[in-house]
Amino acid sequence: MNLEVKFREYVKKIKAYVYVLQLAGWDSNTEAPRNSFKRRGEVLNFISKELFLLQTNPELINIVNELYGKIDDLDDLLQREVKKAKRAIDKIINVPQEEYLAYQKLINDSQLIWEDAKKNNDYNSFKGNLKKIVEYNKKFALYYDKEANPYDTLLDDYEEGMSMKEYDTFFNALKKDLVPFVKEVLAAKKENYSEFINNSFDVKKQEQFCDYLTDVLHFDRNSGLMKKSVHPFTWNTSPEDVRFTTKYLENYVFSSIFAAVHELGHALYEQQISTEFDDTLLNGGTSMGIHESQSRFYENIVGRSNEFWLAHLPKFKKIFPEQTKNINAKDMYKAVNQAEASLIRIEADELTYPLHIMLRYDVERMLINDNVSVDDLPKIWNDKIEEYLGIRPTNDSEGVLQDVHWSGGMIGYFPTYALGTAYSAQIYNTMQKELDIPKLIKENNIIKINEWLKEKLHKYGSSKTPKELLLMITGEKFNPKYYIDYLKDKYTKLFL
Amino acid sequence: MNLEVKFREYVKKIKAYVYVLQLAGWDSNTEAPRNSFKRRGEVLNFISKELFLLQTNPELINIVNELYGKIDDLDDLLQREVKKAKRAIDKIINVPQEEYLAYQKLINDSQLIWEDAKKNNDYNSFKGNLKKIVEYNKKFALYYDKEANPYDTLLDDYEEGMSMKEYDTFFNALKKDLVPFVKEVLAAKKENYSEFINNSFDVKKQEQFCDYLTDVLHFDRNSGLMKKSVHPFTWNTSPEDVRFTTKYLENYVFSSIFAAVHELGHALYEQQISTEFDDTLLNGGTSMGIHESQSRFYENIVGRSNEFWLAHLPKFKKIFPEQTKNINAKDMYKAVNQAEASLIRIEADELTYPLHIMLRYDVERMLINDNVSVDDLPKIWNDKIEEYLGIRPTNDSEGVLQDVHWSGGMIGYFPTYALGTAYSAQIYNTMQKELDIPKLIKENNIIKINEWLKEKLHKYGSSKTPKELLLMITGEKFNPKYYIDYLKDKYTKLFL
Repeated sequence: MNLEVKFREYVKKIKAYVYVLQLAGWDSNTEAPRNSFKRRGEVLNFISKELFLLQTNPELINIVNELYGKIDDLDDLLQREVKKAKRAIDKIINVPQEEYLAYQKLINDSQLIWEDAKKNNDYNSFKGNLKKIVEYNKKFALYYDKEANPYDTLLDDYEEGMSMKEYDTFFNALKKDLVPFVKEVLAAKKENYSEFINNSFDVKKQEQFCDYLTDVLHFDRNSGLMKKSVHPFTWNTSPEDVRFTTKYLENYVFSSIFAAVHELGHALYEQQISTEFDDTLLNGGTSMGIHESQSRFYENIVGRSNEFWLAHLPKFKKIFPEQTKNINAKDMYKAVNQAEASLIRIEADELTYPLHIMLRYDVERMLINDNVSVDDLPKIWNDKIEEYLGIRPTNDSEGVLQDVHWSGGMIGYFPTYALGTAYSAQIYNTMQKELDIPKLIKENNIIKINEWLKEKLHKYGSSKTPKELLLMITGEKFNPKYYIDYLKDKYTKLFL
Repeated sequence: MNLEVKFREYVKKIKAYVYVLQLAGWDSNTEAPRNSFKRRGEVLNFISKELFLLQTNPELINIVNELYGKIDDLDDLLQREVKKAKRAIDKIINVPQEEYLAYQKLINDSQLIWEDAKKNNDYNSFKGNLKKIVEYNKKFALYYDKEANPYDTLLDDYEEGMSMKEYDTFFNALKKDLVPFVKEVLAAKKENYSEFINNSFDVKKQEQFCDYLTDVLHFDRNSGLMKKSVHPFTWNTSPEDVRFTTKYLENYVFSSIFAAVHELGHALYEQQISTEFDDTLLNGGTSMGIHESQSRFYENIVGRSNEFWLAHLPKFKKIFPEQTKNINAKDMYKAVNQAEASLIRIEADELTYPLHIMLRYDVERMLINDNVSVDDLPKIWNDKIEEYLGIRPTNDSEGVLQDVHWSGGMIGYFPTYALGTAYSAQIYNTMQKELDIPKLIKENNIIKINEWLKEKLHKYGSSKTPKELLLMITGEKFNPKYYIDYLKDKYTKLFL
């Protein structure tokens, strides 16, 4: 089958370019010296352009279209791969090259402008770029499908098959059930359980504890590594090369611990994908939402459980005897679940986190549908956060300017954070029917959980859509009820 | 000038591919997880092939030949660049592609075979590959110039303009003057001055001292970084991204110190090259020999001087108070210059080091000129080292198998180590007429030395040949006398 061989060759080439760009990205984000960025940008630009030419090569497009024309004759995996290739091509093919390049330049330039705006608390210096980014995103979405609502198209970019209709249902359920519950918890909670955590914790020792957790979670060090960076992230080229970073703050030890456990969730997913997908388009996790379900599962459901601290507080106390002198596992459990109204998403606790996402979804939905002007965003943002959490930013740096995503052109990405967290509760509900999770965590037997996730989810890589996976695993479609129930149950027991 | 524009475009493309391959190399040699190497090899192979196709593109070859045809009309820098390009093309153009690829595969495979052979002390398992590597090297040299002696061609690969004639003169001078002197020093020396160095030195603290030295030598941390690796090396893509590694042994602190200072010599050279060469073929140090002259200068002439330890022993004692209780600068000076007959090149001291290189030159010269069979190498090796240093390996791992170079196809490389060290003495002789080096070292004013080297040597990058540079700096051709005099003077004062 000549067509298939040619397709495979293109995929191989494309993946080689992606590979070296990924390597460069890892380097940039972890250790590249600052003066290297100018030249690096020029070189990588050239390589990116070669990749773009390859991805939009007319011969490749013909091959994909021909294969797509007889999709039912192909075996299952190739079907899925061709569909993915077709979707990627369709998303880009109608975009005029000069617009594509202008947009690339725009989002490149916007990074620094956003950084400065955030630093200087100066929304006005960024809003011009944001306007253009919103316009380009709408325009590109309409090039792909002029009939569809552009926000639906953008949402689908980040979570295949998701649209406003489903997200509305989800977020409306949160609004109805979770917002009042959060207010109730925040009103009831009187003590600060995490005061001792703001003491000084030696960074080298934090590293030692994160190393320990890396082994607790059975991360394979022959197929990856842990490093530090300013913003924690996970990176991978194949299941045999999966790396993650964490971030150390001397006066907030939870930062390194939960960033590590969160990224370990992403990393375990990637390490447990079948290597049969290495040379295909089906490698890597299947979607942002499913990926986030894994990171949030390990971070919150495992890492913020009572059993986890029953198992690992002794080690923590051994490394930090002074700071934890009078602390027991119950204290630790309360400390790691300390809930409070706060302004910054990435510092939010498990309970209030989804409200931060809800707000961003509301804002993006309005922006793309012209129901609001970029000029008015700061006020809208502040009003919304006050509505959901009862507090109000005093400046835009802790409001509308706080996240990097929009400056990077990522509109439609945020909702996957809450969605993934909700997926994790639904998957957890199924898992509990087959495994005694609290017991496994308490007995430091997390490998059993890893194995379950590998068989049910991880190993499939991108060969299943998020919706197919969720249905296969849990026997039902996405249902936000599990998430709301999980949060209510956990926080009622903790603080009500 | 359309031809020149096209040439520039090719150079830019080629350099982009080289850049990403370099980044991948840095990653491989410092932190890539072991399971990543299989897939990495496949991907990088593909990128290397793209690069090879670019470098041997008939259009590029025509452009270079056309430019070469009117070389006198070009400006000086372009002349040098075109000559370099022409030379690179000529070295490869007559090699049949299948032989080129077979050779690449051979040297790839030979790495692991050599590693295992060295580990298992089993020369027989490696010698088949070595035979083939020698044959290919001869063959490729003859493709380039069928009239020339192939070893001359190989020597020129690593040090432009050098041939057996000049190396013979150099090594004969060493044989005549240095071998007897070394024997005299070794016979006279009775004490072991470096015993205290074999105590335990905490690796984290060694890192702290190497960090200190990095600042002492005025390495620009915004344009580079220090890291650790199994084999110390320097890596660079431009003066704005220069990285080096060192290696830590708990029971041998000199290993990290002198590897760091050596690599810092390479790194300072690269950082001080003019950025005007970034997008040309004239970036980077001009040759292996000149590069080694810089690393050896900082390592030996600066780092192993009495003044260096007058300046920096206090810091060393502060970090390691216990281990250095009764040590003064004079003790340290003797310890870092401890000379003894030893079997392993990379562990050899400044005095005996060139004899290790001489031996390798003798062996390569014979191998390429069919004066010896690969089968007989172990015996020849052992006889030679006994002749020069009076000791004999008890196994091939500490004899003929010790170095990685030949398994990587590098024949003709070794002599540049001794040549570069000799260059450094000749350059030092000139430098002393303009600067009071011992005073500058003692006053921790090394930046003045850096500045001198930048103006006289570093800034030129590859825009001058090694011979041009040496003549410009010292006013004369290469003369081994300076090196022999330097060693005799230093070691007479130290131990005779």
